[in-house]
Amino acid sequence: MKPSRRSEVPGFEVMSILAEIERLRSSGRDIVSLTAGEPGSGAPPAVNATAAQVHADNTVLNYSPAFGIAPLRQGLAEHYQKWYGVDVPAERIAVTTGSSGAFVLSFLAAFDHGDRVALARPGYPAYRNILSSLGVEVVDLDCGPDVRFQPTPEQLDEEVAANGPLRGLMVASPANPTGTMVDRDQLTGLAHWCRSNDVQLISDEIYHGITFAHPGISALEVDDDAVVISSFSKYWGMPGWRLGWAVLPDHLVDPVSRLAGNVALCPPHGSQIAAVEAFTDESMRFAALQLDDYAAARALVLDALPSLGWANAAPADGAFYVYAHIGEHLQRHGDSPAYAEALLHEASVAVVPGTDFDPVNGHEWVRLSLAPGSATVAEGVARIRGFHA
Amino acid sequence: MKPSRRSEVPGFEVMSILAEIERLRSSGRDIVSLTAGEPGSGAPPAVNATAAQVHADNTVLNYSPAFGIAPLRQGLAEHYQKWYGVDVPAERIAVTTGSSGAFVLSFLAAFDHGDRVALARPGYPAYRNILSSLGVEVVDLDCGPDVRFQPTPEQLDEEVAANGPLRGLMVASPANPTGTMVDRDQLTGLAHWCRSNDVQLISDEIYHGITFAHPGISALEVDDDAVVISSFSKYWGMPGWRLGWAVLPDHLVDPVSRLAGNVALCPPHGSQIAAVEAFTDESMRFAALQLDDYAAARALVLDALPSLGWANAAPADGAFYVYAHIGEHLQRHGDSPAYAEALLHEASVAVVPGTDFDPVNGHEWVRLSLAPGSATVAEGVARIRGFHA
Repeated sequence: MKPSRRSEVPGFEVMSILAEIERLRSSGRDIVSLTAGEPGSGAPPAVNATAAQVHADNTVLNYSPAFGIAPLRQGLAEHYQKWYGVDVPAERIAVTTGSSGAFVLSFLAAFDHGDRVALARPGYPAYRNILSSLGVEVVDLDCGPDVRFQPTPEQLDEEVAANGPLRGLMVASPANPTGTMVDRDQLTGLAHWCRSNDVQLISDEIYHGITFAHPGISALEVDDDAVVISSFSKYWGMPGWRLGWAVLPDHLVDPVSRLAGNVALCPPHGSQIAAVEAFTDESMRFAALQLDDYAAARALVLDALPSLGWANAAPADGAFYVYAHIGEHLQRHGDSPAYAEALLHEASVAVVPGTDFDPVNGHEWVRLSLAPGSATVAEGVARIRGFHA
Repeated sequence: MKPSRRSEVPGFEVMSILAEIERLRSSGRDIVSLTAGEPGSGAPPAVNATAAQVHADNTVLNYSPAFGIAPLRQGLAEHYQKWYGVDVPAERIAVTTGSSGAFVLSFLAAFDHGDRVALARPGYPAYRNILSSLGVEVVDLDCGPDVRFQPTPEQLDEEVAANGPLRGLMVASPANPTGTMVDRDQLTGLAHWCRSNDVQLISDEIYHGITFAHPGISALEVDDDAVVISSFSKYWGMPGWRLGWAVLPDHLVDPVSRLAGNVALCPPHGSQIAAVEAFTDESMRFAALQLDDYAAARALVLDALPSLGWANAAPADGAFYVYAHIGEHLQRHGDSPAYAEALLHEASVAVVPGTDFDPVNGHEWVRLSLAPGSATVAEGVARIRGFHA
């Protein structure tokens, strides 16, 4: 018996490295992990307090509605009003099992087998791997430093002229792994291009709130037809709670609803009840507080780059990653996977090789996560320096 | 802009009815819901106590490994030893986001676009709808009372002779909606047929433990190459926790692992930590206790069938449903969806029309869930009787 051909996607290397870190730690090794986008802060205390109460009361947690409980959808609608000044009816908001759940459902609802969907390279590997497992053709846009790692309408025009029409475009701002953001003009230009070319725009806004230059805008501010995907995992520090959402254009509400009821049934119910507390002033202050520490970690790494021998780091406008060329270490180690493995096993510090994010040039790059916080990042950077010395 | 063609799956009607029930209740209506497979008991107290502690401690819940935390995988491996006497290494167990997550990952890993996968009709609608959204051709096996609603090797032979080879077979025992089970000989026969025909057997065992005749066997007892899917939702009363698992044959471990790291990242981490407590003697006793009440509810409904005017009810060997023909009500109401709607709006009791489970004959059947417990079921049955009077 053989697995399917479509299961031949690359693994998400971050997840394998996490497993290896767990293995090393359980054998007693002290590993500094600067790998995953996992905030060290955890959830806002009021969110945890509500969850603790739900369970202390032995609340029966049955299925929620497929799109989530009404108070959470309402809370999200109000959040869009407060943060972006956009009116989104709660009916257009689907609470999902992490942003992962939102990607799967949106991709299924918007794209058919054989459709072509464009995305920036480097980029979050799961976009590419989910799409290809669903039979969608992934169209790479080579987005280097010259375009600040973000796609442009010119690239899209060239792609269509060369290889035919597209059905979708993924945009991420702040992006993973580079942290770069698109401004209002750029996002308007991309949305306009999508509309003119009958292309579904999907905007990954999971790192919104974690920004160091300007606050960034939502695709909803410039395009009511965009799918916007986000999550409680990053800004609110809740990756393990598996709770995200999609804001859907009218034409995708029913399709995603039907798919969600079959594919997922519903997102975790306890997480939903607790997450209603994520939007209180107190919780928003707690989340905002983490930014100072991410900023300190970011400054620390950007300052340390020359001493690490890393080069050409992406601007890191937002999100909590530094994506850098491994510079002088390339020759010695051969590629970034080998370099990352040496760092893990010899310096007990874990970073992610760029191959996860860029199948073409990623072997020369690494991603370092700032999410564990400045103290952990400082220790990690010191270990890397010590390894090089 | 248009949705994809593949999003044109039917909704899972149960989920729509749940939303309608929530709407009616929020307008003050007292609805008895005998719709979803949602145990009224909730999780074992020790599971809730652990979850409460995790949150009271403000535990940082990051991503878990894609296949789940080691103690839970180990607990599941021991569970298979205890319940079935089979040795399953923890490495072959993938903890998933509900059984839904296990279905999506297993289907992606085992089947390609255009493959043909057979399943019993009537059956759980999400099998059919997930498969078709993933581009897999669903092959209906017409399984009526003559074959106790379960597929047979003879039917499979006929299907292959008539329409060509199959790539997969879904078997569910106890089945939803009929509750019928396959015995060791039948399951051995089906597994043998699959092996001889290079067909991947997927066995849905989510209702294991909830059985009224014989305890039932796992496909793992007769076939190491089967995929076995189950969940904490039913026997342990934890549907809203979104925690299930798949036991994978060797050839699917790596493919599912790669897919899981991209498609889902990981199952809910807090649910996992708490679920380790599901296998203690105390928790197992708590779960077993619910059986008496399901049995009482089952007896109550089966006894009441003539007075309800329902006919030909499936045997309900296990699971917590009674699937019955609506008999004399068919003529008056036209079909079971209209009948179910009348019951909901005029008698304030909700059941699920069979159209969810059987696109051909389901308009003459309804499914009544015993999961809410005997007191609720008694009230529901009384309301239906009153409506008919």
